[in-house]
Amino acid sequence: RIDGDRLWDSLMEMAKIGPGVAGGNNRQTLTDADAEGRALFQSWCEAAGCTMGLDTMGNMFARREGTDPDALPVYVGSHLDTQPTGGKYDGVLGVLGALEVIRSLNDMDIRTKHPIVVTNWTNEEGTRFAPAMLASGVFAGVHAQDWAYDRVDAEGKRFEDELNRIGWKGEEEVGARKMHAFFELHIEQGPILEAEGKDIGVVTHGQGLSWTQVTITGKESHTGSTPMPMRRNAGLGMARVLDLVDEIAVAHGPHAVGAAGHIEVFPNSRNVIPGKAVFTVDLRSPDLAVIEEMVSQMKAGAQKICDEMQLSVEFENVGGFDPVEFDAGCVTAIRNAADRLGYSHTNIISGAGHDACWINQVAPTAMVMCPCVDGLSHNEAEEISKDWATAGAEVLFHAVLETAEI
Amino acid sequence: RIDGDRLWDSLMEMAKIGPGVAGGNNRQTLTDADAEGRALFQSWCEAAGCTMGLDTMGNMFARREGTDPDALPVYVGSHLDTQPTGGKYDGVLGVLGALEVIRSLNDMDIRTKHPIVVTNWTNEEGTRFAPAMLASGVFAGVHAQDWAYDRVDAEGKRFEDELNRIGWKGEEEVGARKMHAFFELHIEQGPILEAEGKDIGVVTHGQGLSWTQVTITGKESHTGSTPMPMRRNAGLGMARVLDLVDEIAVAHGPHAVGAAGHIEVFPNSRNVIPGKAVFTVDLRSPDLAVIEEMVSQMKAGAQKICDEMQLSVEFENVGGFDPVEFDAGCVTAIRNAADRLGYSHTNIISGAGHDACWINQVAPTAMVMCPCVDGLSHNEAEEISKDWATAGAEVLFHAVLETAEI
Ligand SMILES: NC(=O)NCCC(=O)O
Ligand SMILES: NC(=O)NCCC(=O)O
Repeated sequence: RIDGDRLWDSLMEMAKIGPGVAGGNNRQTLTDADAEGRALFQSWCEAAGCTMGLDTMGNMFARREGTDPDALPVYVGSHLDTQPTGGKYDGVLGVLGALEVIRSLNDMDIRTKHPIVVTNWTNEEGTRFAPAMLASGVFAGVHAQDWAYDRVDAEGKRFEDELNRIGWKGEEEVGARKMHAFFELHIEQGPILEAEGKDIGVVTHGQGLSWTQVTITGKESHTGSTPMPMRRNAGLGMARVLDLVDEIAVAHGPHAVGAAGHIEVFPNSRNVIPGKAVFTVDLRSPDLAVIEEMVSQMKAGAQKICDEMQLSVEFENVGGFDPVEFDAGCVTAIRNAADRLGYSHTNIISGAGHDACWINQVAPTAMVMCPCVDGLSHNEAEEISKDWATAGAEVLFHAVLETAEI
Repeated sequence: RIDGDRLWDSLMEMAKIGPGVAGGNNRQTLTDADAEGRALFQSWCEAAGCTMGLDTMGNMFARREGTDPDALPVYVGSHLDTQPTGGKYDGVLGVLGALEVIRSLNDMDIRTKHPIVVTNWTNEEGTRFAPAMLASGVFAGVHAQDWAYDRVDAEGKRFEDELNRIGWKGEEEVGARKMHAFFELHIEQGPILEAEGKDIGVVTHGQGLSWTQVTITGKESHTGSTPMPMRRNAGLGMARVLDLVDEIAVAHGPHAVGAAGHIEVFPNSRNVIPGKAVFTVDLRSPDLAVIEEMVSQMKAGAQKICDEMQLSVEFENVGGFDPVEFDAGCVTAIRNAADRLGYSHTNIISGAGHDACWINQVAPTAMVMCPCVDGLSHNEAEEISKDWATAGAEVLFHAVLETAEI
C-alpha cells in the first residue's frame, strides 16, 4: 500500500505553484511557474534518491536504479503543465503518483530488477503551443524536434526560445531512451467512473483527435454604414461553421464529440465587421473512419457556407492522433492490480489525449484512471477525493511492481 | 476655393503617424501615436495663427478670432483617432478639412464676424474605450465625466490614466463652451454617393445605434472527455446568437443593420469548451422604434437559445444614441454651398455615428459627406480621391463662411 496522505500533501504543495483565479492552477508550459514546478519536482525526486535526466525537449526523467544492469527501465509518469484555467490533478496526479511509487518502494526497501523512471513530459496540454502532447510526440518520433521548436504561442514566442528562457532545455537526445514499459495514471476527465461507482478505469483504448484550424476571410468594413447585402462578415461565417461542427458531432454520436475552444476575430473592434476569423475545430471519436468522415463533412460544409457568403476559407491540421489500442500485457497488469487490491473497475476508453498515446507507439503502454467529480476537467473546479487518488496510485504501484519485477 | 493640394499633403503627412500594417493607420485614442498626431495638428494650427484650447477630456479647440467680440464661435471639426486597422480619412478629413478652412481664410485675408474653432474630439471611434464619441458625449452632457474617466480598455487601463499618460488632459471644463453652430465634414463610409455619382452628401439625419454587450456563461470542460449532452458550451450559444442578430437585421431591412465586431471566448484554449463568451451586438436603424424592437427581439431570442442550452446570459448596454435630425438651418447652409459651387449632391442619412450627433444636442449642427471608394471604411484600404476631398472641404468652407459671416 502507498501513502495516500503523503501523495495528497504533495499534490497540494505543487498546486501552490502557478495558482489560478478560482482555486485551480495556471501553470502553463514553459512559463516561470512551470520552471518552479519542475524545480520542486526535481528536489522531491532527489530526496527520494533518484538522479534526474533532462532531454532537449525539456522532458524530465528521475531514475531509481534496478538490480539488473541490463534490464530496460519501466517508465511511469505524466505532465506537470496545466491549462490556463486548469485543475490541480490533470497530469499532476500521474507525475506525483509515480513519485509516490518510488517513495513507497523506498519505504518498503524494495529493489526492483528493472530501473524505474518517473517522467514529466513537456507541453502535454497544447494550450500555449499546439499540438498537445508535443514533447512525448517528439520522443516517439511522431514530430521532428526542429518543427516542435518552431511552434509559437499566441504572442509569437517560439517553443525553443521559451524552453531556453526558463532554463529547462537539457543535453540528452530526445527519444534515445528505450523502455521496458510505460504506465500513466490520470484522472478520467469524464463522468463514467463516478456514474458507475467504480474506483478504477482500466484504459484499454484512447479515442483519436483531429484539430483543424479554420481561417475565414471576409472584408473589414463599418458595422453602421455597410448595407447588409454588401457585408462579408467572417465572424458570421464562423458562427455558422461552429453550429455545423456541433451538428456533425451529434449526428455521429454517442461516441463522437466536436467543439471549438479557440476562437478569434480580427480586428475585434465593436464597430468593424470582422474581416478574418480564426478558430480551431476539435473533433474526436474512438473510430478513425468516423473522425475522417467528420473532418471531411466539416470542411465541405464550411466551404459551402463560405461560398454562399462570399467568404474564403482555409483549413490547416494543427494536431491530432489516431485512436489508440494499449498494450494487452500492460492493460492486464493494471486489471490484475485492481483485482488484487479489491478495487472495483471497468474497462474505459480515454476521451482525452495523453502522453501514453504517443509512447504506446514505441513501448508497451497502458493507463490507469481514477474518477473525478462530475466528470469535470479543464476547469479550475476540477476535483477528486483523496481515496480516489490513493486507489489510483496503489493500482499504479502494483502494476509497476509486477512489470519491474522484484 | 480652398487649396486641395495642401489639404491632401496634410492628410498624407498625418497618415505617417501611427501607420497600419496595410497602408492605413493604427492611431487609436490615447496611444503614443495619438499624442504625436495631436502635437502635429497643434503645430499646424499655431502656424495658421490659432490659439489652442484643451479641455479635461482632451478635446482640442484651435481658435481663429472673429471681428465681433460678442459673437459665439462657429465650431468645425471631427476626430484624429483611428480604428486599429483604420483608414487615413475617417475623422482626419474632417479635422484637416476644418484646418484648411482656416488656412484658406488666411490666404484670402478674410475676417469673419464669428470666431472659428477647429475641433479634434477625443475617442470618437470607441474601439479602445466604449462607447464611441465618448468625449463629444461628455461635452454635450450625455455622459458624466467621471463615468467616462472610468472606461477601461481590453487591458484594463483607465481612460483618465491614459489621457494623463499621453499628456493631453487640459484644465478647461468640458462642455463650458457655447457654440453658434457646429459643422463636420466626413467621408460617407458607405456606398451611396459613389453609386449615385454625387460629389456631396447633405446629411439630413443620422441613424441611431445600440451596443449591447452579451455575456453567456456555460461551464468550462474538456473538449475530448465531456459527452455531448453534458456540455454547456458558451461559444456555441454565442454562435447561435450571432446568427440570430443577422436574421433580425435582415428582417428589419433594408435600412436596419446588425452584427458583432467584438467577440471573445474564455479561456480560449483549443481543448476547453468555452465557459464564457463575451461579444458586443451592434444594431442600427434610422428609426428608434425599429432599434428598440431589434434589441428586444435579440435579447428574447438569446435568452431562449441560452435557456435551451442550459447557459445563462446577461445583457449590458455599452453605448448608443438615438437617431438624429440635424439642424435645418445648418443643413441648408451646406446644400446652398454645394449648389453655389456647382457640385452634384443628394440628401443622405449617416450610417455611422459622429461627434456631430452629440453636438447636435447642444448647438445647431450639420454634416457634409464626400464619397469613398466602394463604400469601404474601418479598413486600412479605405480610399478617397483628392477631388472628392477638395469638394467636401470647399462645401465646408462655404457653409462655415456663410454661418460665421463676413
Ligand atoms: N489529458 C488532457 O487533457 N490532455 C490534453 C490533450 C487533449 O486535448 O486531449
Ligand atoms: N464614423 C465612425 O466610424 N464612427 C464610429 C462610431 C460608429 O460606430 O458609428
